[in-house]
Amino acid sequence: MRALTVEPGRPHSIDLEDVPHPPASDGNLLVRALALGICGTDREIVAGSYGWAPSGARRLILGHESLGQVEAAPEGSGFRRGDLVVGIVRRPDPVPCAACAAGEWDMCRNGRYTERGIKQRHGYGAEQFRLESDFAVKLDPRLGILGVLLEPTSVVAKAWDHVERIGKRSASWQPRVALITGAGPVGLLAALIGKQRGLDVHILDRVTGGPKPQLARDLGAVYHVGDLGALAPDVVIECTGAGNVVLDALRRAAPQGIVCLAGVSSGGHKLSFDVGDLNRTMVLENSLVFGSVNANRRHYVAAAEALAKADKDWLARLISRRVPLARWREAFEVRSDDVKVVLDFAA
Amino acid sequence: MRALTVEPGRPHSIDLEDVPHPPASDGNLLVRALALGICGTDREIVAGSYGWAPSGARRLILGHESLGQVEAAPEGSGFRRGDLVVGIVRRPDPVPCAACAAGEWDMCRNGRYTERGIKQRHGYGAEQFRLESDFAVKLDPRLGILGVLLEPTSVVAKAWDHVERIGKRSASWQPRVALITGAGPVGLLAALIGKQRGLDVHILDRVTGGPKPQLARDLGAVYHVGDLGALAPDVVIECTGAGNVVLDALRRAAPQGIVCLAGVSSGGHKLSFDVGDLNRTMVLENSLVFGSVNANRRHYVAAAEALAKADKDWLARLISRRVPLARWREAFEVRSDDVKVVLDFAA
Repeated sequence: MRALTVEPGRPHSIDLEDVPHPPASDGNLLVRALALGICGTDREIVAGSYGWAPSGARRLILGHESLGQVEAAPEGSGFRRGDLVVGIVRRPDPVPCAACAAGEWDMCRNGRYTERGIKQRHGYGAEQFRLESDFAVKLDPRLGILGVLLEPTSVVAKAWDHVERIGKRSASWQPRVALITGAGPVGLLAALIGKQRGLDVHILDRVTGGPKPQLARDLGAVYHVGDLGALAPDVVIECTGAGNVVLDALRRAAPQGIVCLAGVSSGGHKLSFDVGDLNRTMVLENSLVFGSVNANRRHYVAAAEALAKADKDWLARLISRRVPLARWREAFEVRSDDVKVVLDFAA
Repeated sequence: MRALTVEPGRPHSIDLEDVPHPPASDGNLLVRALALGICGTDREIVAGSYGWAPSGARRLILGHESLGQVEAAPEGSGFRRGDLVVGIVRRPDPVPCAACAAGEWDMCRNGRYTERGIKQRHGYGAEQFRLESDFAVKLDPRLGILGVLLEPTSVVAKAWDHVERIGKRSASWQPRVALITGAGPVGLLAALIGKQRGLDVHILDRVTGGPKPQLARDLGAVYHVGDLGALAPDVVIECTGAGNVVLDALRRAAPQGIVCLAGVSSGGHKLSFDVGDLNRTMVLENSLVFGSVNANRRHYVAAAEALAKADKDWLARLISRRVPLARWREAFEVRSDDVKVVLDFAA
């Protein structure tokens, strides 16, 4: 079968290869790939700056934003042939930390998790893959190809879940205004969940063209480029990872504000600023900032519910390009009108 | 009666003045001052860099770390003559924000609170003051002079309360190691509560002499100067407000770590560092940092319980100097062996 593989650490070693069918040890469900979402982490791995091959292997099958159809499932697994499924990305270590043991592998304390398509475990970028039923999430079949948005949605479902749980430090916490920085797929999905929670949602990005401004407006969000005026959001979901945007978010949040960092920066750029002044403001205003990565099963389930409730036409517009597997190289090109690019295994 | 007053904004305008007795509008309890704790905020006000006089007044009666004895209380107030009391510092605006309306004036959303001895409301640095019974906290009479530690303890009781509530974002959160930066009174009281919660407590400070190292050790905490080695705390309570210490705390915290900023910095010093790199680490490790200021009634009650459980001899050593009111100027001198300096109104 064909699979997209890469040698982690070696730039542009990506290729479409013939690889053996997945071993039974990968899980009790045999799945035929339908689509694979491509994200910034995939591009980092392709660039050679992130990613780890499985122990003993030189190459890694890429891909963690999966969508597939069950081809074979044992009785009692809770799945059957034809089910639309998405695979969870992270797996706990066989000797789990306290968080992983509790099913919170997204909060792993010792870093010994593995991740499909990213860290020491083959990904979902293959014509067939296997999944343990405990790490498979069944989707409403009416979602179809839109199910490929489940993994990025799970990431922001976790972000919002933590915002809500953290907000309970105060009995009177009633957020009204949310700011999402970055109108990429993660930002737009964060905005979707913010709207579903009844918040007044603002999105900040740099682009004035392409589909993003209209996608934001059709969600009922306010799209901003540049100056945010006096906007003082109760919640910020930061999806750019850009140092100056992160700092602006911290300074702009309302008293008692919660800033969630959901964008992974590349680093390497020093900024000079008054840490003491920021610290003082954070203390006097009870400000809070936290990083959020990955998602556990609870968040995938919440994400599936969020997608099921969403306007399907709007979701479909998030998938700005569907690239057939045979033309896979195009999926890794960055084009100005891209939102989410998806590799289409069924085309 | 005599009171310590200051003209906010005018450096070193502090003086011991004769002022009228407190008006009945200040509250239904008449209290005779026993002691007043002096802290960094008082020194900032004395230096002219913080503080606001009451509306219509030029001078502010200083002091917010109170201890007094009730001289007169109406029936049904829950207080009677002779009770040992401490006054809560903050008051909500007559038109309260949602937080203040819920009794969480420490989480005020619009900044329209007032604070006794700090912001637009006379403080407790007078031979007599009045308190509304709703803003008075009764203490176990056996605490005696140690009751003057209640206000700074309430600040760290809030910090710990929020650490615990925020930790509930994860079902598996079980902190074991705490780092307190700064061995001033707030740091040592934060360490006390950490030990009472069964944590392995480490304290970082710069001084090797004076009473602080032994106070830390007698609490069962590890006292560090300089290098912390591989220590990766689950919780950091940052009590210095120094920019570089704040940054080190953020970088050092364990995955899923919670850093509470409880030290108010003066600002004015720029630091240059890689915000993107810190952001990336915070995202990948689910790190969290929050500012915490002030305390509400619940935290004063928790603080009173913490003091009641603590070793009284150890608490007594926190009060390193007791200065009689007549020699009040000495209380504002900074001496190398100071921990908490207290103005003694009964001497």
